[in-house]
Amino acid sequence: MSVTAAKGFTAAGIAAGIKANGNPDLALVVNNGPRRAAAGVFTSNRVKAAPVLWSQQVLAGGELTAVVLNSGGANACTGPKGFQDTHATAEKVAEVLEIGAGEVAVASTGLIGVLLPMDKLLPGVEQAAAELSEHGGEKAAIAIKTTDTVHKTAVVTKDGWTVGGMAKGAGMLAPGLATMLVVLTTDADVAAKDLDGALRHATRLTFDRVDSDGCMSTNDTVLLLASGAAGVTPEQGEFADAVRAVCDDLARQLIGDAEGASKDIRIEVINAATEDDAVEVGRSIARNNLLKCAIHGEDPNWGRVLSAIGTTAAAFEPDRLNVAINGVWVCKNGSVGEDRDLVDMRYREVTVTADLAAGSESAVIWANDLTADYVHENSAYSS
Amino acid sequence: MSVTAAKGFTAAGIAAGIKANGNPDLALVVNNGPRRAAAGVFTSNRVKAAPVLWSQQVLAGGELTAVVLNSGGANACTGPKGFQDTHATAEKVAEVLEIGAGEVAVASTGLIGVLLPMDKLLPGVEQAAAELSEHGGEKAAIAIKTTDTVHKTAVVTKDGWTVGGMAKGAGMLAPGLATMLVVLTTDADVAAKDLDGALRHATRLTFDRVDSDGCMSTNDTVLLLASGAAGVTPEQGEFADAVRAVCDDLARQLIGDAEGASKDIRIEVINAATEDDAVEVGRSIARNNLLKCAIHGEDPNWGRVLSAIGTTAAAFEPDRLNVAINGVWVCKNGSVGEDRDLVDMRYREVTVTADLAAGSESAVIWANDLTADYVHENSAYSS
Repeated sequence: MSVTAAKGFTAAGIAAGIKANGNPDLALVVNNGPRRAAAGVFTSNRVKAAPVLWSQQVLAGGELTAVVLNSGGANACTGPKGFQDTHATAEKVAEVLEIGAGEVAVASTGLIGVLLPMDKLLPGVEQAAAELSEHGGEKAAIAIKTTDTVHKTAVVTKDGWTVGGMAKGAGMLAPGLATMLVVLTTDADVAAKDLDGALRHATRLTFDRVDSDGCMSTNDTVLLLASGAAGVTPEQGEFADAVRAVCDDLARQLIGDAEGASKDIRIEVINAATEDDAVEVGRSIARNNLLKCAIHGEDPNWGRVLSAIGTTAAAFEPDRLNVAINGVWVCKNGSVGEDRDLVDMRYREVTVTADLAAGSESAVIWANDLTADYVHENSAYSS
Repeated sequence: MSVTAAKGFTAAGIAAGIKANGNPDLALVVNNGPRRAAAGVFTSNRVKAAPVLWSQQVLAGGELTAVVLNSGGANACTGPKGFQDTHATAEKVAEVLEIGAGEVAVASTGLIGVLLPMDKLLPGVEQAAAELSEHGGEKAAIAIKTTDTVHKTAVVTKDGWTVGGMAKGAGMLAPGLATMLVVLTTDADVAAKDLDGALRHATRLTFDRVDSDGCMSTNDTVLLLASGAAGVTPEQGEFADAVRAVCDDLARQLIGDAEGASKDIRIEVINAATEDDAVEVGRSIARNNLLKCAIHGEDPNWGRVLSAIGTTAAAFEPDRLNVAINGVWVCKNGSVGEDRDLVDMRYREVTVTADLAAGSESAVIWANDLTADYVHENSAYSS
């Protein structure tokens, strides 16, 4: 279903030859209207790939007709030639769809610092345009995979309108790993500023709270396109909830397929003085390599949770901290709590609950464990 | 030589039975005077182990007669009983040496959240006191090891006076991994405030710039004790240089023996607008798991260096960044530079140079690669 679940959209995914192994590597998503409202959020990394710089520009007008995405090369740190290549890609899409290049967003993922093979990419755009279909959403989702083992799609259907989407990558928007690309579509008739509001609200609570390995990508892109083809303008709160639900679903799929991971770690920070405190503490726990190793080893090593909390500026007293792992309060009042042997960590999902005892705010951050497979995959990736 | 290289000090290292495997686990260092000036720096983690809280208190007076250190247990997150145990340890040292407990610093390293076996530790203090010797420095250095594969000592001798020391651990002072304990001694006659100045200057430029795995310990402790036995008061600048040289040597040894590491990474940040910028960028590079994996795989993946720089608030323009790996400028002006195949990464030491092209300040941060051995060692450590 993916990006073509909502009415008014066609998509395609093809193998243009950008990837040496011949796997699909080029996706095209087209909004056939009647509306073309759009919004986007991008990596907060100050080193931004050429397609990110391009897409930020074209989104300034709040409208998009097409999105072209390639895997097999990030087109990041590629200098003026890289930006020319992004521009040429958008121009090619505009030419074959008979629209303006300023209506085309571009997204790329793959190795940094390598120019794209434009002699393969541009003919690929023609082929993708020829294959555009109302059933092309799955193929598009497949074509944007890099190290993903499965493609990721999600759909929420409400009373007469739909929000759907596709995602690739394993990590966060900001920071983010290995590039996260997400395209969401809806047939609801929603103005660009309301799309923007719903998308920022959703990403702040979903993709921004997924931290597989603490590394921020140069290419992260999340786009939301509205065709208005359903002829319905939902109430903004209901629309925002639907966008958030799709983002939540896709974010959870990203963590579930993170490179080399054997555990999905749900970090709940509760009783924080502020939501910002809860997020800061959650991120610090999420990025603690020693804890990530311990969870890989199914070791409920709560001392590493406390040492991670201790590096933050959040409000708490060390001797009032409580930590539960999979519901067992192994740390109470900053010291030894329930018997750690009661903790069952055999399953893929592990919940770490950090009670700051400093207020009533909370946040959930998702992370992964650190494994030898992660090391292997990322020490050999570009070789 | 270690902590007994300087005149006026005796030391011992024994197996008290704190470690289940019977290895040495208790060290005692005594300053026999005539002076007893001392200074210390401690972890900046807000979750501090009982011995850190104790030693910070006793150092308030600027004097120390003895330091007792144990491996086999961090005595962190152990509540009021943990603090009582630290206090009882200091009282025992005071009793056998016929001094006051307020003259005794305590340092501990090992697992967090476990109470120390005081029935073994206290008799161990008596045994260590009985074995105190002017040649005990090596044994003391051996007794503080945990996952260290070798013990670490360093000595600088100047005209009539000496600075020596021992260290354990693999990481930084703040943040720090797996606890770094360092005891430095000198027979120079230096007042407590000058010891403090020299020690803070040295740690800021050495232990604070070593980042093996980005994890900050609850127990990091660096102490400097002066006996005055040489009868010489060096010029402060010369003294500070000697302290820094010993710290530099020990810090380099910590990185060289970091858990599971196969590479020592020297990260030079040059042409920064400020020293703080250089340190921030160096730390961001040092903590990038993807880059650490790439270096493990001997892959000169400069894109990961740029994406790490891009997460900082330092002054730079993305299209003016240059990166060299082992002297080959693989990234120039934010884009592809010299041929990456020219980079030879076969040796343990790898140098990453990041040129921010934004000023004239610089800093060096040391880090390690990320390996399957690191994952293995830290997923099985407490089991």
